[in-house]
Amino acid sequence: MTRNLTTIGFDADDTLWQNEQFFRLTEERFVALLGAHGEAAEISGRLLDAERRNLAFYGFGIKGFVLSMIETAIEITKGEVKASVIGEILTAGREMVAHPVETLPHARETLAQLAGDYRLVVITKGDLFDQERKLAQSGLGDLFHGVEIVSDKTPEMYRRVFARHGDGPERAMMVGNSLKSDILPALEAGAWAVHIPHELTWALEHAEEPTGQPRYRRIPRLSALDELVRLIEAEAAAP
Amino acid sequence: MTRNLTTIGFDADDTLWQNEQFFRLTEERFVALLGAHGEAAEISGRLLDAERRNLAFYGFGIKGFVLSMIETAIEITKGEVKASVIGEILTAGREMVAHPVETLPHARETLAQLAGDYRLVVITKGDLFDQERKLAQSGLGDLFHGVEIVSDKTPEMYRRVFARHGDGPERAMMVGNSLKSDILPALEAGAWAVHIPHELTWALEHAEEPTGQPRYRRIPRLSALDELVRLIEAEAAAP
Repeated sequence: MTRNLTTIGFDADDTLWQNEQFFRLTEERFVALLGAHGEAAEISGRLLDAERRNLAFYGFGIKGFVLSMIETAIEITKGEVKASVIGEILTAGREMVAHPVETLPHARETLAQLAGDYRLVVITKGDLFDQERKLAQSGLGDLFHGVEIVSDKTPEMYRRVFARHGDGPERAMMVGNSLKSDILPALEAGAWAVHIPHELTWALEHAEEPTGQPRYRRIPRLSALDELVRLIEAEAAAP
Repeated sequence: MTRNLTTIGFDADDTLWQNEQFFRLTEERFVALLGAHGEAAEISGRLLDAERRNLAFYGFGIKGFVLSMIETAIEITKGEVKASVIGEILTAGREMVAHPVETLPHARETLAQLAGDYRLVVITKGDLFDQERKLAQSGLGDLFHGVEIVSDKTPEMYRRVFARHGDGPERAMMVGNSLKSDILPALEAGAWAVHIPHELTWALEHAEEPTGQPRYRRIPRLSALDELVRLIEAEAAAP
C-alpha cells in the first residue's frame, strides 16, 4: 500500500512550547514603564505599529522586538525617555532570550507516538540562535528527523522543505497554531494542514480560517494529533 | 578515478561580500556620538566587552550589535545618555540592515569557474534574515547547490553540512576569511580549508594560523581559488 502521509512538520512557538506569553508579559512590563506617557492601549498600539514597520528590517524574533520597544519608548516620550527606562527594556529582552522553555502538555508523548511511523520535522521561523536554544532546552530534539529554521513561511518554502525531508508536500502535513504561517501556505503548497489554536496569538499572525479545503483540519490540542493522523491514513486506505 | 574533492563550502561575510566595513563605519559613528564621554579606544573597548558578554544572549549579527551599542551608551554615560543618541544608534542599525551588498572582486567569476565541477555551498553564521537578504541581493544565489545559515561554526556542524550536501568532510573544502570560524573547525572535521585573509576581521574572530596541517592553504584573493583547487585535484590524481 502506498502511504498517504510520510512526513509531519511542526511549528515550534506556541505549538510545541509556550512563546507568546513571554512577549505579552514583556509588553505589560513595557507598558508599565511608560505608564506616565499614555494609556496602555495606545502604547501597545504604537509598539505594534513599530513591529509591523520594522519587520522588513529585523525579521521575526526577540531582538527585533526589543529594538521596536526602544524605538517606541523614544517616540511615545517625544525623545524624553530616560536611559534607565531603556536599560530596563534591555534587561527585559535579555530575560526573554534566557527564559526557561516550557513545553506544551503532551508534546513529547505525541511526538513519540508519531516518530516511529513518520518523519517529523520542526519548521519554525524567527531567530536562528533563539530557536536552536529553545529546541535544545525542550529536550524534544531527538524525536525530529530534521530542523528547519526559516525567515518566513511561504508555500515555496513548504514545497522545498517537504521535498528535502520527505516525499513532497502531497504526502506531508503541517501542524501549528498560526493560520497565517502554518496553515494557509502549507495548504497552498498541497500539504495537509492541522490547526491547533493557542489562546495567545500575535496580532500580526491573524488570518481567517480556510473553507472548502479538504486537507484542512482543526484539533483542540496536540494530544489529539496521533488519532487524527491514523484516521486520515485509514480513510485514504479504504476502497 | 575517484574524485578527491566534490564539495566546496564558502563563508559569505568578507569572503564573498564586504561586511566588516559596515560594522567599523557604524562603530566610528557610535564613538563620535559618545565622544564627550571618553576616548575612542576606551569606547570601542567597552563596546567589544559588551559584544563578547552578549554573544551568549544574542548570537552573531547586526541586531545584537545594535543592542550592545545601546547598552554601552548607557554604561559609558553612567545612565545620562540622551534619547536622541539612542535614536541615532537605532537609525545606524537600520541603515546597516539595509546597506547595499558589495560583492568582493571576482566573486561571481570564481564561483562560476567551479560551479560546473563542484557542489558549492554557502556556510555562514549570523542572522538568518540578514544573510538571506544579502545572498538574494548579491545575485550569487543561483551558483550554489545549498545554503546553510548556522548559529555557530563547529567541527560537528561542518561534518553535518558536508555530509548533507556532499560526500562528507574528507572530500570537501571550506573557504573563508576567519581562521577561527572557517579554517580551524573545518580542518578538525577533516576537510580542506583555504584561508583568504580580509584586511578587516572582527576582534572576536582572531585565531592563530594553523601549522602542520597538510590540508590547510592560504591564498591572497578569491580569484586564485580555481587554480588552487585544480592543483589539489591534480596532485591527488598523480601516482
